[in-house]
Amino acid sequence: MKKPLTIVKIGGNVIDNSEQLHYFLEDFSALPGDKILVHGGGKVATELGVSMGVEAKMVDGRRITDIHTLRIVTMAYAGLINKNIVAQLQARYCNAIGLTGADGNTIKAVKRPVKTIDYGFVGDLDEHSIAVDTISSLLNAKLVPVFCAITHDGDTQLLNTNADTIASAIAVAMSAAYDTTLIYCFEKKGVLRDVDDESSILSEIRLDEFAALQESGVISGGMIPKLHNAFEAIKSGVKEVYIGHADELLKQGAQQGTRLTQ
Amino acid sequence: MKKPLTIVKIGGNVIDNSEQLHYFLEDFSALPGDKILVHGGGKVATELGVSMGVEAKMVDGRRITDIHTLRIVTMAYAGLINKNIVAQLQARYCNAIGLTGADGNTIKAVKRPVKTIDYGFVGDLDEHSIAVDTISSLLNAKLVPVFCAITHDGDTQLLNTNADTIASAIAVAMSAAYDTTLIYCFEKKGVLRDVDDESSILSEIRLDEFAALQESGVISGGMIPKLHNAFEAIKSGVKEVYIGHADELLKQGAQQGTRLTQ
Repeated sequence: MKKPLTIVKIGGNVIDNSEQLHYFLEDFSALPGDKILVHGGGKVATELGVSMGVEAKMVDGRRITDIHTLRIVTMAYAGLINKNIVAQLQARYCNAIGLTGADGNTIKAVKRPVKTIDYGFVGDLDEHSIAVDTISSLLNAKLVPVFCAITHDGDTQLLNTNADTIASAIAVAMSAAYDTTLIYCFEKKGVLRDVDDESSILSEIRLDEFAALQESGVISGGMIPKLHNAFEAIKSGVKEVYIGHADELLKQGAQQGTRLTQ
Repeated sequence: MKKPLTIVKIGGNVIDNSEQLHYFLEDFSALPGDKILVHGGGKVATELGVSMGVEAKMVDGRRITDIHTLRIVTMAYAGLINKNIVAQLQARYCNAIGLTGADGNTIKAVKRPVKTIDYGFVGDLDEHSIAVDTISSLLNAKLVPVFCAITHDGDTQLLNTNADTIASAIAVAMSAAYDTTLIYCFEKKGVLRDVDDESSILSEIRLDEFAALQESGVISGGMIPKLHNAFEAIKSGVKEVYIGHADELLKQGAQQGTRLTQ
């Protein structure tokens, strides 16, 4: 039987709220067994850019990571946010180790090819980008990896990378050796039947129900790619995926978000 | 017989010069056996402070780490400098992993007590601050730890810490399990008989010669505390200490700096 492994992803809505981050890290520390945290960015990168006079660069509504932006996100994500999360987890006796994909060559991405838009220093990756052996060594040493959304290309270049993608790639890759559960914390309590009614949570969606829920319009908009990616992870070996609010999703015996399974 | 372990410390004079850093990382990658890199800061932290409007705070000629400065050094040292060094080592097939003392609780320091001066968020440490088991686990996983000069107090607080002290504390602590060699790269080629003559290098100083060299005035000024600390490390178990220029100290068969021994 494989050992269980939980991969949790948090974004700006948790990171930017120090009280919410505090409670989240308390719950995360209390999670039993092997676990990995993946965090996105937050307002601090934007604020840092403003204070340094570097404007966010957009092309056709897409954010571009030029060399100045890459410096800023490296400082904000890999430095300030990652190390403060690690120090806070350590204070809760969770033996966290903060990493970019360059550290231990844990995530080797590819700079996004230029087609119509040059996204700049952005990394694309999949489950084959993940160094399963190195991450397993860290887990076996009773360490808790905390990944920020920076990877590298193996040829000296750091790359800005989507944290959701990192979390699912790690979950899929680690599934060969572990029973993996992937938990996406986001701003809603789960997948809702009625987007304006936080109590209308769908407690479970099976892979074979997904298409029907899309057709009937219950799942629409931004939830479609999110759930599509989650089910792709499940098809590739992840045991289950939870989507919901950080406040509730990690509490023992109170997993009130939406559970996605085969 | 114990396994050999080399701990190398570099400072701003290497970090701030991209060509020198390039050659140093080439030499460091080629070093055989288990190894650890410790790096100090560099101009980038000062520049970052200027661009963010945070002035270096001095009291009685001493630099103070207030909360703004701590944020800046965390971003610059743990983020920008550390991760770029790691990415450059990875490109040379050196499996580097960048760390602060918070990561894996590897270095738990104590905030410097306020006596006449409040230094702010500065950490003091000694060999008992070092998590030998965790660092050994990383080395056993064939990883190369790269420490920046940030530690923590175990109670959520990150601390700015002297990189020379980190290097010697790691070397002393790891001596219980390894034959440790400590290499300090600095701006001179070694300990010089004549400070203005770079060819007057003392190739070796034994512990029992140190006092006489001080009395005769051959060793003076800033070299006294540097050598004092090095000999303290030797008295506490470090096998040998090299002091000299990064260009020459790491080259195989060309260790031209000053070698300090028992």
